[in-house]
Amino acid sequence: MEYQTLTQALDAFDRYQKTLSAYRHAMGVLSLDAVTAAPEGSWEGRGKTMEVLSGVVYDLTVGKENGVLFDYLQSHLEELTELQKRELEQARKEYDRMQRIPAQEYIRYNVLLNEADAVWHKAKAENDFASFCPILEQIVEFNRKFAGYYNPDLPAYDALLNEYEEGMNMETLDKFFARLRDTIVPLIEKIRRVPQIDDSFLHRHFPVEEQRKFSDYLMELMGLNRAYCGIGETEHPFTTNFGNRDVRITTHYFENDLASSMYSVIHEGGHALYELGCDDCYNYTLLSGGVSMGIHESQSRFYENIIGRSPAFVHAIFPYLQEHFPRQLEGVTEEMFYRAVNKAQPSLIRTEADELTYCLHVMVRYEIEKQLIGGTLEVKDVPAVWNRLYREYLGIDVPSDREGCLQDSHWSGGSIGYFPSYALGSAYGAQMLAVMERELGDVYSFVAQGNLEPITQWLKEHIHRYACLKKPGDLFREVCGEFDPKYYTDYLEKKFSRLYGV
Amino acid sequence: MEYQTLTQALDAFDRYQKTLSAYRHAMGVLSLDAVTAAPEGSWEGRGKTMEVLSGVVYDLTVGKENGVLFDYLQSHLEELTELQKRELEQARKEYDRMQRIPAQEYIRYNVLLNEADAVWHKAKAENDFASFCPILEQIVEFNRKFAGYYNPDLPAYDALLNEYEEGMNMETLDKFFARLRDTIVPLIEKIRRVPQIDDSFLHRHFPVEEQRKFSDYLMELMGLNRAYCGIGETEHPFTTNFGNRDVRITTHYFENDLASSMYSVIHEGGHALYELGCDDCYNYTLLSGGVSMGIHESQSRFYENIIGRSPAFVHAIFPYLQEHFPRQLEGVTEEMFYRAVNKAQPSLIRTEADELTYCLHVMVRYEIEKQLIGGTLEVKDVPAVWNRLYREYLGIDVPSDREGCLQDSHWSGGSIGYFPSYALGSAYGAQMLAVMERELGDVYSFVAQGNLEPITQWLKEHIHRYACLKKPGDLFREVCGEFDPKYYTDYLEKKFSRLYGV
Repeated sequence: MEYQTLTQALDAFDRYQKTLSAYRHAMGVLSLDAVTAAPEGSWEGRGKTMEVLSGVVYDLTVGKENGVLFDYLQSHLEELTELQKRELEQARKEYDRMQRIPAQEYIRYNVLLNEADAVWHKAKAENDFASFCPILEQIVEFNRKFAGYYNPDLPAYDALLNEYEEGMNMETLDKFFARLRDTIVPLIEKIRRVPQIDDSFLHRHFPVEEQRKFSDYLMELMGLNRAYCGIGETEHPFTTNFGNRDVRITTHYFENDLASSMYSVIHEGGHALYELGCDDCYNYTLLSGGVSMGIHESQSRFYENIIGRSPAFVHAIFPYLQEHFPRQLEGVTEEMFYRAVNKAQPSLIRTEADELTYCLHVMVRYEIEKQLIGGTLEVKDVPAVWNRLYREYLGIDVPSDREGCLQDSHWSGGSIGYFPSYALGSAYGAQMLAVMERELGDVYSFVAQGNLEPITQWLKEHIHRYACLKKPGDLFREVCGEFDPKYYTDYLEKKFSRLYGV
Repeated sequence: MEYQTLTQALDAFDRYQKTLSAYRHAMGVLSLDAVTAAPEGSWEGRGKTMEVLSGVVYDLTVGKENGVLFDYLQSHLEELTELQKRELEQARKEYDRMQRIPAQEYIRYNVLLNEADAVWHKAKAENDFASFCPILEQIVEFNRKFAGYYNPDLPAYDALLNEYEEGMNMETLDKFFARLRDTIVPLIEKIRRVPQIDDSFLHRHFPVEEQRKFSDYLMELMGLNRAYCGIGETEHPFTTNFGNRDVRITTHYFENDLASSMYSVIHEGGHALYELGCDDCYNYTLLSGGVSMGIHESQSRFYENIIGRSPAFVHAIFPYLQEHFPRQLEGVTEEMFYRAVNKAQPSLIRTEADELTYCLHVMVRYEIEKQLIGGTLEVKDVPAVWNRLYREYLGIDVPSDREGCLQDSHWSGGSIGYFPSYALGSAYGAQMLAVMERELGDVYSFVAQGNLEPITQWLKEHIHRYACLKKPGDLFREVCGEFDPKYYTDYLEKKFSRLYGV
């Protein structure tokens, strides 16, 4: 169709974005339901629905009339607001990209991912990599092909990295990870030689019911508005959202591990604060939600580690813990608790890893993904390489694939290139802390009083409220200047050498 | 488009049904999420999504090409299977009906219902009918208008009744309810004059965790395959499903009431067995799922009352109860338990009502709906009429709207004309029992052994497997002959005069 006026075109553009948002919402809730409440055998029917809906989304996105609309808007660029310009840029990007992906492949991929989730769950439960291998092969194949559609000018893995962190590439990451290793590995070596921290009391019996109440307490402490933020229980904790007024975090309770769910809730709570803090104007647009996985993880890992694993935070929550877990924490002091939740020790499970060794887990995945997408590693060989790298980086043996390469949900969810954002986010967070402290003074003095408000306000003001308005690199630079991993390595070195006296 | 071959047309018809099923699935999961997990403040965003999706469903249903397709198929009727003929009949019916509903009204109604759910929840919690009144007025207005679209030749309320039970009308129901009243009211009168049953032990403290396990036990006893049937927790118990491999029941736990959730699970479990028992060929078609609310309630209330409140059933589950609730049931015999769960006593809440007084609750709603739709009652006067009828039919005073006209979710969900199916279903079930006993012998001998398999098999064979292939009246008649409420009144009279010795 032809547009007579800009108003008419903007109306059409608005409708287009609202319609896409609606489908994303519906598909998002179907996926959420799949992992929270749906019975196991329901995947087939959900697959058919996803097939239909993703087909519609594909058609909507590549619709010829979009080209006409976007061209018309482009020709009136000077009359558009900053917001509209960015929406247009984003719409054009998705349009161009989707046009390079054949419809049938797009739909087949979505159907595959729905199936993969069920297969992965079963494979993990049964410690059976062989049953997951064929579907992971297909996912890798799709990702290699899609990388070419995303950006044919880049090496495939760089194109995938860009999906999660615009502007990121292997060159930067290789250097970043090398630098992290140079800091972390010697530190771990030193720590190995001194007396270890006793965290056994964290593994006493903590009833799920009590842990659920503790989650409520933590969410309240973090200022998560429950009218807009729910909490559920899943195998693997995550955050998802539909606009800034419907955010869901999930956790997983283990009766013999208090810290596991505690730090899942704080981590996912950090993601949730980001989503809840986006300005209203981005709802129902293509700019809705957090801008990149790296920035997202900078928020979640900021709350989890920089705040949540600080002496000040432990000080703030310790009275609650003593009141609600009196028997389990008998004889445990604040200091002991702080040390226990920071115990650094090479381990098997990434999501349970301590702050210091965490990035080594990410590096294992990064190496494997790089090779899988680069074509130098076959899926069937993933367990062997995984186990070898865990030995090399973390110095430990992996006893089973369930605790090894089957532990994460990312690959079955189609997310290849996501993992590095965890490490990047951690480093972003440390640099943000430095800026925040220049502006707010000693943030830990608020934290110690259980007052996270000034911190969340600062992050909202500088990061959250912009949603996807600014590109992640620009957003970060405007707040923190050039990215420099030194903030993070300094932070780790200072914290852990003090903690262990090394 | 023109169809060249029947195969081509049938493919298009298949695609049409699959597409509609996908949207229904997505919208169903959005609604389910709304009442199970979504945060309170998320309703607005969900509303926008529902608006978009229901607009698409409307367009899909009234699409001009459907007329061409259905005409083509109609002209090849003799070449269609029985299944295809019924699908076509159903598709044509929905097409004709939807064409009479203006698009904007259809969408606005769906948006309204999404909002109404949140408003009703709040109004009920705050015992504030006034805040619910304006939205109920709109729902009633929509229903009066829609009744004319559904069937302009019928009185409005008859047209609505037909939505839930094809062929039903006020004339039949007036007679049916009069007959029920003639049986029930004198029985209640007699019971009032004899010593009452002590059910106080059902109101001891039953921890939710233990009740959850009890639900699992009941679902297993009923043969509900958990791979295809989940259980959740909501304000008001219900069953929903997406094909025959994804059924969800919900319940509500009260720590001081064992029977409440117990009979909700059995009731919803009866609905679930119906859905799970539908043959696979109906999935993703317009004939998917139970055929009418009356037949559906015949299954749920059959399990809840005819089976679940029988001495044989109590005998089967009593060892479990004794083992898991030893303190609460100290000194309680099987006979005492059986009598307690059958205590007949006029009460306020329909879903908690005993089997004997239950239909009187339905009659109150029937009278009010008839008058609301007939135009002889205004929404603002509903509380007064409700309270007057509770006094008249059940002999009790309603202390608050929360325990009165705000108690059910049906009206906020747009379901006007649904309630009579509960009573009809109860009566259908009693007649089915008579036929079943002729064919299987004493069904309670199976029940007493905890073996419900022959009963479920019989119902599957005669009712469940047909999904919507047969119209409800035909389905019932083929199994039971002409509907005769005498089976139900005889059943009630026998059971309750024996129980109370009156």
